[in-house]
Amino acid sequence: MRVLGVDPGLTRLGIGVVDGVPGRPLTMLGVGVVRTPADAEIGHRLVLIERGIEAWLDEYRPEVVAVERVFSQHNVSTVMGTAQASAVAMLCASRRGLPVHLHTPSEVKAAVTGSGRADKAQVGAMVTRLLRLDAPPKPADAADALALAICHIWRGTATNRLQQAIAAHRPARIQEPRA
Amino acid sequence: MRVLGVDPGLTRLGIGVVDGVPGRPLTMLGVGVVRTPADAEIGHRLVLIERGIEAWLDEYRPEVVAVERVFSQHNVSTVMGTAQASAVAMLCASRRGLPVHLHTPSEVKAAVTGSGRADKAQVGAMVTRLLRLDAPPKPADAADALALAICHIWRGTATNRLQQAIAAHRPARIQEPRA
Repeated sequence: MRVLGVDPGLTRLGIGVVDGVPGRPLTMLGVGVVRTPADAEIGHRLVLIERGIEAWLDEYRPEVVAVERVFSQHNVSTVMGTAQASAVAMLCASRRGLPVHLHTPSEVKAAVTGSGRADKAQVGAMVTRLLRLDAPPKPADAADALALAICHIWRGTATNRLQQAIAAHRPARIQEPRA
Repeated sequence: MRVLGVDPGLTRLGIGVVDGVPGRPLTMLGVGVVRTPADAEIGHRLVLIERGIEAWLDEYRPEVVAVERVFSQHNVSTVMGTAQASAVAMLCASRRGLPVHLHTPSEVKAAVTGSGRADKAQVGAMVTRLLRLDAPPKPADAADALALAICHIWRGTATNRLQQAIAAHRPARIQEPRA
């Protein structure tokens, strides 16, 4: 499974592409950051982010896009920009018909370090080890994007298996939930 | 000046197009709502919003897009979706090279009613009067989008005049601000 992970942000949006399946060594295909100038207009920054993400999707052709789930209670000063950057990432993926999965920061930390409260250095160290890199990817946004992709490969597959198991034991007809 | 106003939201995104200049009767060209199903995936909802906004931009060819400025302190439960919907609106406008302007809810209320703390009914009543409609546009998101467009025609022009006045009296060279 090839996953493109996105750590959303207006100034720096981390992107990492990882190939792998649970229980096997993972492979990093690419890692980087899409940057936009802090003094540019918000609409123009979103256009730059769209172009950046499109270029990554074109080059790496992932099967799934994993995006960090943004919460309104954290980092109030930057949360709106983070939400807007994540919207562009989700839009680009869905427009191509790629499944989009969201993972919370603590799910990502727990997946790669075993602790949902691990710090940045610990996440960077584990990403370096799991992908057999020479040094932790910089900036931290790039390492976080790789951690998201790894988290998805491990968690996503577990979720898929669970969904398949539920589907196999589901009654033939289920009333659809109402909006 | 032809302005397309957007009251952003994931479930209902209000759109209103108004033509006019300050001091003259305003003309409503169109009003409506882009809806997305609450049970759809977030990425798909953003794609539907993009398609909806693109259709409005194609049909009405506005010169400016005015979007409500979203704050993280208001309506915590829906603020992330609102920020994401507004990102798509700003992206669509900027991608076409259209200027995007943001106005706060209180700026919009003050512009159309004279009070920044006016309620929905008061805004709806003034939009109805200013655009010479038979009844307030429904839902409220549609009326709010028209109010945004009106606010921009009145405030935006004042801002432009101010900027022109400043530019006229500006020294020949000014050091650019650093990011």
